[in-house]
Amino acid sequence: MLNVSIAPDGTEYKLPTEEENEIEFTRVKEITAQQRALGRKIVGVQGLGFVGCVMAAVVADATDEKGNPYYYVHGHQRASKRSYWKVPVINTGKAPVSSSDPEVPEIFHRCIMDRKNLRATAEDRVYELVDIVVVDIQLDATKPAFGEAEKGFCDLLAFREGIRTLGKYIRPDCMILVETTVPPGTCEKVVKPIIEEEFIKRGIDIVQHPPLIAHSYERVMPGSKYVASIRDFWRVYSGVNQKSKDLCREFLSKVLDVKNYPLTELENTNASELAKVMENSYRAANIALTLEWARFAEKIGVDFFKVREAVRKRKGTHDNLLRPSLGVGGYCLTKDPVLANWAMKTLFEIDDALDIAINAVNINDTMPLHTIDLIKEMIPVLRNVKVAVLGVSYLENLGDTRHSPSKTLVEFLHKDFAMVKVHDPYVEYWAELEEVKVYNDNGDVLPEADVVIFAVGHDEYRQITPEFIVEKAGKKPLIVDCSNFLDDAVIREYLHLGCNVRGVGKGHISQL
Amino acid sequence: MLNVSIAPDGTEYKLPTEEENEIEFTRVKEITAQQRALGRKIVGVQGLGFVGCVMAAVVADATDEKGNPYYYVHGHQRASKRSYWKVPVINTGKAPVSSSDPEVPEIFHRCIMDRKNLRATAEDRVYELVDIVVVDIQLDATKPAFGEAEKGFCDLLAFREGIRTLGKYIRPDCMILVETTVPPGTCEKVVKPIIEEEFIKRGIDIVQHPPLIAHSYERVMPGSKYVASIRDFWRVYSGVNQKSKDLCREFLSKVLDVKNYPLTELENTNASELAKVMENSYRAANIALTLEWARFAEKIGVDFFKVREAVRKRKGTHDNLLRPSLGVGGYCLTKDPVLANWAMKTLFEIDDALDIAINAVNINDTMPLHTIDLIKEMIPVLRNVKVAVLGVSYLENLGDTRHSPSKTLVEFLHKDFAMVKVHDPYVEYWAELEEVKVYNDNGDVLPEADVVIFAVGHDEYRQITPEFIVEKAGKKPLIVDCSNFLDDAVIREYLHLGCNVRGVGKGHISQL
Repeated sequence: MLNVSIAPDGTEYKLPTEEENEIEFTRVKEITAQQRALGRKIVGVQGLGFVGCVMAAVVADATDEKGNPYYYVHGHQRASKRSYWKVPVINTGKAPVSSSDPEVPEIFHRCIMDRKNLRATAEDRVYELVDIVVVDIQLDATKPAFGEAEKGFCDLLAFREGIRTLGKYIRPDCMILVETTVPPGTCEKVVKPIIEEEFIKRGIDIVQHPPLIAHSYERVMPGSKYVASIRDFWRVYSGVNQKSKDLCREFLSKVLDVKNYPLTELENTNASELAKVMENSYRAANIALTLEWARFAEKIGVDFFKVREAVRKRKGTHDNLLRPSLGVGGYCLTKDPVLANWAMKTLFEIDDALDIAINAVNINDTMPLHTIDLIKEMIPVLRNVKVAVLGVSYLENLGDTRHSPSKTLVEFLHKDFAMVKVHDPYVEYWAELEEVKVYNDNGDVLPEADVVIFAVGHDEYRQITPEFIVEKAGKKPLIVDCSNFLDDAVIREYLHLGCNVRGVGKGHISQL
Repeated sequence: MLNVSIAPDGTEYKLPTEEENEIEFTRVKEITAQQRALGRKIVGVQGLGFVGCVMAAVVADATDEKGNPYYYVHGHQRASKRSYWKVPVINTGKAPVSSSDPEVPEIFHRCIMDRKNLRATAEDRVYELVDIVVVDIQLDATKPAFGEAEKGFCDLLAFREGIRTLGKYIRPDCMILVETTVPPGTCEKVVKPIIEEEFIKRGIDIVQHPPLIAHSYERVMPGSKYVASIRDFWRVYSGVNQKSKDLCREFLSKVLDVKNYPLTELENTNASELAKVMENSYRAANIALTLEWARFAEKIGVDFFKVREAVRKRKGTHDNLLRPSLGVGGYCLTKDPVLANWAMKTLFEIDDALDIAINAVNINDTMPLHTIDLIKEMIPVLRNVKVAVLGVSYLENLGDTRHSPSKTLVEFLHKDFAMVKVHDPYVEYWAELEEVKVYNDNGDVLPEADVVIFAVGHDEYRQITPEFIVEKAGKKPLIVDCSNFLDDAVIREYLHLGCNVRGVGKGHISQL
């Protein structure tokens, strides 16, 4: 459909016309003037995605000791078919994301309906009016070949366009705070030159008015602490010059809980950009390491997860040890090492590589194939084998399918001509694998299943007893535990019922 | 010299004759009988190396609530030229190791001279008399080619001989507790078959008397908490059968501080053996990862160490992040991944590899070459360049040169025909690089130095001021900081004096 943006609930929103844009801009100017009269600074948040929409609410929610908001927030979302719907949805007082965090609907309702200092708009010229812009444009890495992250790259086109929009409209004293996870070097080598170029076009003297650009990355986690993970957590920041750093610190100090989570200033934006992708690379490498030890454990009668718990008792030195599972999903660990490796080669033209980090991404991306290997140890030929996959989200107890390893699992099961049915209580529709229907009732996937894969450890699955599985399947399916979900007592029940059981890292099953 | 063992202080001890051995055995039997009459169990500790000697003292030092020792301990050391001296030294009440931990001389003196329940012997037949043997035979990995840890192997010859000695002498109900870090599978596939073989030779029914073999690894750290790191720390254990596990738990519960550091039981010895080498592989991989990020940081004006501190503020998830330095030394991180990889292929005949862990060892082993690269950025040709290396120990404030990365540094500087002088306040004699004299006075290494490398961050080196270095050198040497030892203020002083400064991970120096 032309010029229509469809919300997840199916509601259609017409994209604004030029005439409507003019009306909107007049309205935005009026509101801004009113809010300035209340002594509030004006903040724009660019990009109302997973981080941006909640960050906009967190900024709007910040008040002085008397409860007066520091800021009025214009949440800005381009009028694209994919995302425009967020603007009208937010402006009715609703969050444009569903979450298990009860604070999400509360904070949106409070800021939009009660305090009235948060509003969404698709009008670019809003940036003429703001004192601060928080950039939350999404930025992804492209991995053109499966398991070859070394060929990955970062397509900065949309990001650069977004920054150019800012350069066209912002006042020279407006502070740009880049919150997006970017390849190291982006603020210095991408954002600053674009802003300078646009300033020069506008006749702004960039010696007298050097662009004010800061970087501070979020550490958001989906789930029940979604808002707190943005507001009440440690932050690292820097800026391209001293004034940018100062303005950034002042802004973050008002918006975040810096009393309990003090800020860390780094010397330049390269450093803060590097810190973000490095901390995720550390996690990615940590997980990748565990897979090879889990495979070893499987072959020598050892439960890798009990070993892991023993090792993690060394607090302070070994308690960050992660674990293998079906694989690694989500938005950060799968791409951040690629952003860094690409930046090294492309933005800085350094003849080196982040081999461990990139190798970790490859191991993690291909980790679901290990689960298929476990199945093939019992059922060598998967053609026409009926497989029930329980869980397509990338995390437990969430409906988030971004870069979910279940996608790789299902695709490779299809390649082997298995007959796959997938279930997830939290997912209505699998955006990344549209052709696969996701059932919400396990009664739709279990009947006749030869293999049942506990792909994701949703708590809801704990209520499924071995008796229920065997009864529903009408046979004794092979049970595969990808995420250390079945404890030894439950595995014993499956064994007593005559099922075979396999699990990632679970080498001890034959001894049970 | 024939049949003489020379202690580190130069004292010569004649190895015992057969006649002396008979006298010793009579004495050992008498002592044992007296100690049994006091209600004490008899423990043998096999191998009085870095772990064994202190473990022997810790076992002897354990008492019931009334202060009565639970055990009498025979520390056993083979009568080899390399190590026999430890027997007479211990029996005069002295520790056979020097340490900065004041508890070391105290615990030896207390157990040997006051309580008189610890004594060393070279007599093998002592194992006839014991209820428990703690095996602390050293076991190393051999890496036949530099930077190719995948070719590494474990020579079990001496270890197997030691175990065979036990099989020849121990009572069938004696519990063997292997404390040595061993390749996974060793207790099941090496220790047990040897003991069974020897039992059968002695006519012992191994069905009625299956060997009692347990494994529990230490987590010793050299330095000021040496004794506590053995006694007051978390332990993991398992056994080849239930009785072995029970006896092991009972023994460790008496000897260690299990109130504050509860024991963790794993299902089999493969698991506890795997846990040890995995926890060190985790550390090794963690360090290796940081080197590539440090190299990146160096090239983009970033201080890696400040980034690291920012990342580590995420307690519980990121605070284990380690750091690069000159390289990785010591006895554990350099060999444990090799033991595991070798065991996988050889003891279990699994066609797989611990690639990340092995790659980490290679990166860490070759890490000192990065320091040489840093020097060559400033001084491309090192022939006849005078280099002062400050620090040859593998850890700060210790005189421990085992697998020290300074060895690789010095060897490769020699390959480039640099003129190297090395200094360390804690090292008299460099056992692994005998041809290199270690100076204890920096006045012997600094004059005319073109390059001064802070290889190890000994606290003593903090007293060396930039003025002192320049004055002693008589020129403005290149300063190289391998271990984030020089803070920004000190680096600025060097720069003001006209020295160039480079550092591992320190990309920010040009901005100071």
